[in-house]
Amino acid sequence: MPRYKLIIEYDGTPFCGWQRQIEQPSVQQELETAIAAFSGETVNTQAAGRTDTGVHALGQVVHFDLNREWDPFRIREAINHHLRRHPVSILLAEAVPDTFEARFSALARHYEYRILNRRAPAALERHHVWHVPVPLDAEKMHAAAQLILGTHDFTTFRAAACQSRSPLKSLDHFSVRRELDHIVITARARSFLHHQVRSMVGSLKLVGQRKWTPQDFRAALDAAQRSRCGALAPPDGLYLTHVIY
Amino acid sequence: MPRYKLIIEYDGTPFCGWQRQIEQPSVQQELETAIAAFSGETVNTQAAGRTDTGVHALGQVVHFDLNREWDPFRIREAINHHLRRHPVSILLAEAVPDTFEARFSALARHYEYRILNRRAPAALERHHVWHVPVPLDAEKMHAAAQLILGTHDFTTFRAAACQSRSPLKSLDHFSVRRELDHIVITARARSFLHHQVRSMVGSLKLVGQRKWTPQDFRAALDAAQRSRCGALAPPDGLYLTHVIY
Repeated sequence: MPRYKLIIEYDGTPFCGWQRQIEQPSVQQELETAIAAFSGETVNTQAAGRTDTGVHALGQVVHFDLNREWDPFRIREAINHHLRRHPVSILLAEAVPDTFEARFSALARHYEYRILNRRAPAALERHHVWHVPVPLDAEKMHAAAQLILGTHDFTTFRAAACQSRSPLKSLDHFSVRRELDHIVITARARSFLHHQVRSMVGSLKLVGQRKWTPQDFRAALDAAQRSRCGALAPPDGLYLTHVIY
Repeated sequence: MPRYKLIIEYDGTPFCGWQRQIEQPSVQQELETAIAAFSGETVNTQAAGRTDTGVHALGQVVHFDLNREWDPFRIREAINHHLRRHPVSILLAEAVPDTFEARFSALARHYEYRILNRRAPAALERHHVWHVPVPLDAEKMHAAAQLILGTHDFTTFRAAACQSRSPLKSLDHFSVRRELDHIVITARARSFLHHQVRSMVGSLKLVGQRKWTPQDFRAALDAAQRSRCGALAPPDGLYLTHVIY
């Protein structure tokens, strides 16, 4: 069976997340409906990252199999046509070997988290940033981020509902920079625990406010206790930017 | 009477434009409702630029008078509180002399027009860009833009309904640059005719597609005939970015 890989951009705001759920609109559901509409086939798509409600993607990766062979360019055009009423866009479609798995073949996942750090609320970026009206020290946040690079037990930054077998993960890159009114946080790892990025960002905000020192941030990690995590950052600011294979 | 100046950001998508209209949501209506809610006063706000349906602002400027004197910081906070369900945000409020007029004191208006120039439709930037799926030559567009700088009769790029007394305007800056998948067009003038930026951008697109040469673009201006204008660019990509006093 021919296998296809898609790179997808979506606005997570109107969706319950990537994964199909009964009676709630999901990206997976809309995508599979669009694939069925052009191909007549019922497929089960698999994604590199199961983004939560309200989380966005600039480069989500998905694979699926079809019985019939199609020109990848026509697949992209056909899906985009059927998705035209939804904020989901196929950037690229390509044929891949049947050993390719969007989830399990991934070598690294990149996330970006965007904070709007000014007194006035977001208007144009509503639902696309976390609005933090109090001043944040991005340099302190960056210094703290550097203290947790490497392989650790990330239990502190893990959702209670996380289904990962182990809390051990390797964080390869974690940086914080200011761009005028925005604070942009980027994170890269082979894989992340459930809510890991939003948990780390929620705690970094405390560093930015100087309620925590960078050392407090590291101590929270070392405690390996969920109760030591800062309040979870909202989904609005989080983007799955790209996946490396 | 104390006079106040506001700098405002808004997403034009849900509005019929800046100006109040019967039974249609406008930015002016929501703003005046918010001012009345905190001050108890009915005001008539005046804006630097009367943006059309679907046009956005990063730095619209407005003035209004109140009987009572207020701390400008409190004005900003109070209006933002009452506007919280709308994509409108007051970036700055300040007291100004009663000679200040948002519309008539303006020395220059800056607009930006954003084109998403890739095959795949916009997902995250839906309603915030003009999606042009065919390749555009930004350098040719920039060359054409340079040919119409200065003072001219802009009848070709003027809406039939334009109420300006004269079609003579001075275009001080007009540039086109590519930023990856985006083409960003910036324009500056003391004032613009109705639909002028969208008319110029719609015609520049023909240059980008190489249907027109830069000289054709200049010839269209010189003809001073509305029928020589390319199709009007949609409002989605247009932003009033700032106003100089």
